[in-house]
Amino acid sequence: MNREQLISEIRQKKSFLCVGLDTDIKKIPTHLLDTEDPVFEFNKAIIDATKDYCVAYKINTAFFEANGAKGWISMEKTLQYIPKNIFTIADAKRGDIGNTSHMYARAFFETLSFDSITIAPYMGKDSIEPFFQYKDKWGIVLALTSNEGSKDYEQEKMGDDFLYERVLKTTSAFTNSGNAMFVVGATKAEEFLRIRKIVPDHFLLVPGVGAQGGSLAEVVKYGMNPDIGLLINASRSIIYASSKTDFAEKAKEEAKKMADEMASYL
Amino acid sequence: MNREQLISEIRQKKSFLCVGLDTDIKKIPTHLLDTEDPVFEFNKAIIDATKDYCVAYKINTAFFEANGAKGWISMEKTLQYIPKNIFTIADAKRGDIGNTSHMYARAFFETLSFDSITIAPYMGKDSIEPFFQYKDKWGIVLALTSNEGSKDYEQEKMGDDFLYERVLKTTSAFTNSGNAMFVVGATKAEEFLRIRKIVPDHFLLVPGVGAQGGSLAEVVKYGMNPDIGLLINASRSIIYASSKTDFAEKAKEEAKKMADEMASYL
Repeated sequence: MNREQLISEIRQKKSFLCVGLDTDIKKIPTHLLDTEDPVFEFNKAIIDATKDYCVAYKINTAFFEANGAKGWISMEKTLQYIPKNIFTIADAKRGDIGNTSHMYARAFFETLSFDSITIAPYMGKDSIEPFFQYKDKWGIVLALTSNEGSKDYEQEKMGDDFLYERVLKTTSAFTNSGNAMFVVGATKAEEFLRIRKIVPDHFLLVPGVGAQGGSLAEVVKYGMNPDIGLLINASRSIIYASSKTDFAEKAKEEAKKMADEMASYL
Repeated sequence: MNREQLISEIRQKKSFLCVGLDTDIKKIPTHLLDTEDPVFEFNKAIIDATKDYCVAYKINTAFFEANGAKGWISMEKTLQYIPKNIFTIADAKRGDIGNTSHMYARAFFETLSFDSITIAPYMGKDSIEPFFQYKDKWGIVLALTSNEGSKDYEQEKMGDDFLYERVLKTTSAFTNSGNAMFVVGATKAEEFLRIRKIVPDHFLLVPGVGAQGGSLAEVVKYGMNPDIGLLINASRSIIYASSKTDFAEKAKEEAKKMADEMASYL
């Protein structure tokens, strides 16, 4: 999916919500456990219920890999079930030496056909550029994450910059960095000002609104650009809104609530 | 596998060689392509040929994921085929927020039963500690890698330390850091002195000897400790030593050559 299509989808739906499919077989409603592929059945119901309120789905690969090859099949089926007008993210945090990153790009952009993948930047340029070589595909590079451990390195100084600022600057100079987006944790709304100075145009994938305590209003105030430039992710607060047979209905309510707030900012 | 078992295996075989299974379906001998699972058939032959000369196998997950769910099955079969006295590494470079890292640990330590997994440290403490919670399982944290991109962040200063030194120090203070090993790229033999000052006891997984130009003699001189403390990885130089029907025989020769040199240092 290209940038124009994504922006058009956002404007049409008046939403920049991304629903995170962190589907844990131990947490899904028990009545689904008798089906052949409970994880896929759960995701199908969630997608049916939320697709009118979100513009992206983020598949957290860890939750599928935990079920082995069977989990990988559930992931393939889930990806195929997502309507083509909705942006897809493999939240896989991959990144390795060049020839290996090429293989990860092949895995997620060719064998599977995700629109994007999240990337860990630690190993630098040749670990990231292979993901930028695909037309209309996106490498979403971790900059500032929303977890406690972000203090260990990301929020430490490297020269005059915080490491996460250095990552934004360095990545922006890589070949085909027009195909980059960045992960920016929403628990630090004031830091969006610093971030938007470095990457005014790029889309930002923002976790941590809702359950993790970030404020949507703050993120919009400091993070939005003329093309919107934001995808706000919510995972557990939507997909586990209820643990009973009404889980899809409750997920829909949660997604609608977030989309309604987003519409008020557009 | 615990530390004593690994050391005993090294002393018995007089080798600290790790063979890297970066098995690319586009590079394996054509006569294998008619079999049901060419990647597994290739790995099986490589394992049969090299198992007397190495103490570890490193499965590069990217090369399996590139084949989708089928690739994941090849990976499971390959892992099961490795003799139980040989240490197994999932070279997966995973790492995410705590609950997701728990899922990756479940995937590689429970669903699959690898002895260890490589971890990208960017997201800090809560992304790494879940991998240290398993008895006799190992989290191998990236410190200094052997690729060009290691200059972008790893070899930049964070305070008085290089980032890779900071990672070594910080990780060593995490809960259960006795279950840590570290990836240290062998193209910088003089840096082993710095590294061994910070982590004198930990095992180091060393890529980049051979094909990538590092010297085994230098690595041993500066990196070895009283328990050996080294696993030296070679991938392409062994598994692609020949592209013809004699590929396994040539792989055996290459592995034996490296093991013989290692024996001379023990």
